Amino acid sequence: MNIVITAGGTSEYIDTVRKITNSGSGMLSKIIAQEFKDDKIFYIHTPKAKLPENIDFVDIEVEGVRNLESAVRNILSKEKIDVFIHAMAVSDYFVESVTNTEKLTSDFEKGLTINNFENKFDTNTKITSDSKDLVIVLKKAPKIIEIIKEISPSTTLVGFKLLTNVDEKILENTARNLLIKNRCDYVVANDLEKINKDKHEAILIDKEKILARFNTKMEIAKGIKKAVYKN
Amino acid sequence: MNIVITAGGTSEYIDTVRKITNSGSGMLSKIIAQEFKDDKIFYIHTPKAKLPENIDFVDIEVEGVRNLESAVRNILSKEKIDVFIHAMAVSDYFVESVTNTEKLTSDFEKGLTINNFENKFDTNTKITSDSKDLVIVLKKAPKIIEIIKEISPSTTLVGFKLLTNVDEKILENTARNLLIKNRCDYVVANDLEKINKDKHEAILIDKEKILARFNTKMEIAKGIKKAVYKN
Repeated sequence: MNIVITAGGTSEYIDTVRKITNSGSGMLSKIIAQEFKDDKIFYIHTPKAKLPENIDFVDIEVEGVRNLESAVRNILSKEKIDVFIHAMAVSDYFVESVTNTEKLTSDFEKGLTINNFENKFDTNTKITSDSKDLVIVLKKAPKIIEIIKEISPSTTLVGFKLLTNVDEKILENTARNLLIKNRCDYVVANDLEKINKDKHEAILIDKEKILARFNTKMEIAKGIKKAVYKN
Repeated sequence: MNIVITAGGTSEYIDTVRKITNSGSGMLSKIIAQEFKDDKIFYIHTPKAKLPENIDFVDIEVEGVRNLESAVRNILSKEKIDVFIHAMAVSDYFVESVTNTEKLTSDFEKGLTINNFENKFDTNTKITSDSKDLVIVLKKAPKIIEIIKEISPSTTLVGFKLLTNVDEKILENTARNLLIKNRCDYVVANDLEKINKDKHEAILIDKEKILARFNTKMEIAKGIKKAVYKN
């Protein structure tokens, strides 16, 4: 089978030296890729994500949401992808503009609002640290997971949902909303409070129920493989 | 000699999964550390920074400005540090609060301003991506470089200044302001536009003049060593 696995966390630049990054080491993706070692792996990853070891894979590096979108559109249009495992932590927002409270206050006195202020820093340079504060306005980025089934309806899609400190029922329901909205076949849902060096609790859901519960990254990888091989 | 070298780029958390990171691979610091292989190195670095190879060093990991400040205060009070080479890219700002334009507009209607709005996201959780935008307010962080000579006036201090796309004269003057303000003995000043995989242009200044010009990371490392050994 042809399998795409995404890994790591994307970054969006604030200026030439500062960026907003989503946490994602790529460790789970690496273990998943190694579990699918007999398949053809396209591994789309951010610069610092862990890479699979001792297996062949097509290495595709991306940094931000725009790169990722191009890479995903490109691969889905050129290759027949059987399974897409989207474990990368992707920025939900782009940096729209950067200002500070002094500039904003002066704009507001001119009748402008938070939605149409004009007094901004140039983000194509390194913003000076002279300002006593900064105000960063972010706008919604496109959801990459939405485009996968649009381009390739026959691909088995495995999505991921990470929440912090919630009941399993909330985790399941939030994951199912993600599944329905993006036509995922499966979603792995996990809680940051239940992930550390030694354990990684997660549930695997389909559109109806919880299919499995896991305690480690290896169990998650094996559980995903079992589910997608059944499809 | 006892030498502290800082490496990498610090991160400040926006919420439990998003952070603002300063770019800094640690590659230059690694090369500097290796150049000082006959000295005792205390290497203070962020999690993903490059580490020195084939030399002994004391490994001190930090992530954000607060960690870094503790580590610096700790080492300067416990050890006699002869040279402090502060090449880490340190956040100039902390995340103060996170809101969105809708919440802000509603607060502004109540007479609040950008300086005292109250309607904020809880940053101790993962902020939902339902909001169509986010507004992040950052406040000035303490300057770590300022505290080095305060605690240890006899330490030779090497600072770094990175600008983007400026004339050498502006680079030199900005670097000298940094030197005077923080009582650096030397400052390495460089321009992001003149750094890539193969070259790393930089100037080394003291309080009066440009002491040397460099074209590679190795030249910078050797130039710093030459300068501090003369002290």
